[in-house]
Amino acid sequence: MSRLPFTRLYGPWAIVAGGSEGLGAAFASEIARRGVHQVLVARSPEPLEQTAARLRQEHGVEVITVAGDLAAPGTMDQICAAAADREIGLVVANAALAPQGSFLDTAVAELAGTVDLNCKASLLLARALLPDMARRGHGGMVFVSSLAGLQGVPGLAAYSATKAYLVSLGEALWAELRPAGVDVLTVCAGAVITPGYQQATRRQAPGATSPELVAATALDALGHGFRVVPGNLNRVSAFALQRLAPRRAAIAVFGRATAAALKD
Amino acid sequence: MSRLPFTRLYGPWAIVAGGSEGLGAAFASEIARRGVHQVLVARSPEPLEQTAARLRQEHGVEVITVAGDLAAPGTMDQICAAAADREIGLVVANAALAPQGSFLDTAVAELAGTVDLNCKASLLLARALLPDMARRGHGGMVFVSSLAGLQGVPGLAAYSATKAYLVSLGEALWAELRPAGVDVLTVCAGAVITPGYQQATRRQAPGATSPELVAATALDALGHGFRVVPGNLNRVSAFALQRLAPRRAAIAVFGRATAAALKD
Repeated sequence: MSRLPFTRLYGPWAIVAGGSEGLGAAFASEIARRGVHQVLVARSPEPLEQTAARLRQEHGVEVITVAGDLAAPGTMDQICAAAADREIGLVVANAALAPQGSFLDTAVAELAGTVDLNCKASLLLARALLPDMARRGHGGMVFVSSLAGLQGVPGLAAYSATKAYLVSLGEALWAELRPAGVDVLTVCAGAVITPGYQQATRRQAPGATSPELVAATALDALGHGFRVVPGNLNRVSAFALQRLAPRRAAIAVFGRATAAALKD
Repeated sequence: MSRLPFTRLYGPWAIVAGGSEGLGAAFASEIARRGVHQVLVARSPEPLEQTAARLRQEHGVEVITVAGDLAAPGTMDQICAAAADREIGLVVANAALAPQGSFLDTAVAELAGTVDLNCKASLLLARALLPDMARRGHGGMVFVSSLAGLQGVPGLAAYSATKAYLVSLGEALWAELRPAGVDVLTVCAGAVITPGYQQATRRQAPGATSPELVAATALDALGHGFRVVPGNLNRVSAFALQRLAPRRAAIAVFGRATAAALKD
């Protein structure tokens, strides 16, 4: 079955939230390579401007930057203002906080921040931008979740719960938006080899993939189902842990992997 | 294996959030029947005081009421103040908002409210009250989730995502707190026959259970694993949909059941 070109389905503009570094920057690059202009959103202005300049230079696309915390209401207003003048065909919700270690030792504000950013900002991005896509009859939204979203992970309790939230939200919106021609996808990435990941961990988790692989796999999977797990090993492990192993084994496997990977 | 009495494990005081009506009131009654005093939290003062009076009269327990929105910071402060003077051995996180219908037609404030109440307030209750239990070496926490938390549900997108959040959070905290002797449990209730449910639906869902059955099943299951699904039909359906059926079938089954049950 031949498909319309990417720019027709998911262009002419995309919004990438958490798009300045790591996995978000890989999404931005891959989307730019496919010829789609972008509104990049991230907290730190400097890496944001550097990524924007690189995209303009390497791919010849237009890039607008919004420097701000997605969990702050003003940032969402800026995004909506940028979206009002442009046809947004694609949204990537990638911004996330991931406090690590014992739940009882994690600061209240940090815990609250995971809900505000990982859950609520993703939810409100969807609510702000999907209605116009549905009216036009095409578009896409990618929720960046994780293998950690497929069961609770001791040592990452608050984070893994927000990623389970996105898995569920993505499934429901995939079903609700499909009749309107809008493609919703959740990406359950395993460990992604970014500078942040390498700083936080002492050894690479099995199945660790490059950010480029995750971004390209996700964008290729848009329109072909509600979930994608990039990387063959991750795909097989997710199937085995979700379908074959007892649930408590999945919890234990991820808990041990987290404890082994994290620096003290 | 003989166990310590309920009051020794999960007393002398419990906090029931969303405890004035429906399922929360059933939890409060069942906990009172087991001889545990309570801090009841709910938004509407009138049903809250009525439930409190009934518990005192029928079960002879002490009951303190906190009337307020759990998502407002002041309410959490009041709960912590009440907890400072009392040994809290059990927390039931039951308060939730459940907007129904098309995601694109749901008001932004209503969507944001589901995250603030269903996710964040439950998270912060856990963070506020579990540390003292862990220090004492016993206690319990019940997260009230739903079969809707086991996959995304079209027509209940925002709600089902918050319930998936609780499933995951409960699993991670079960594993993290177990070594400290604290029991964390997530209850995945099917349809619960409460006045609110009967008002919102035009026909009873298959597997619908009484609030009393859900509360008693959950309290009996505390300390025996991370999850319980009250009702035999619900337990079998959950297993079949999670383990045997394709994921998209689970999404479709719950989407159709929601559409069939809800009033227009």
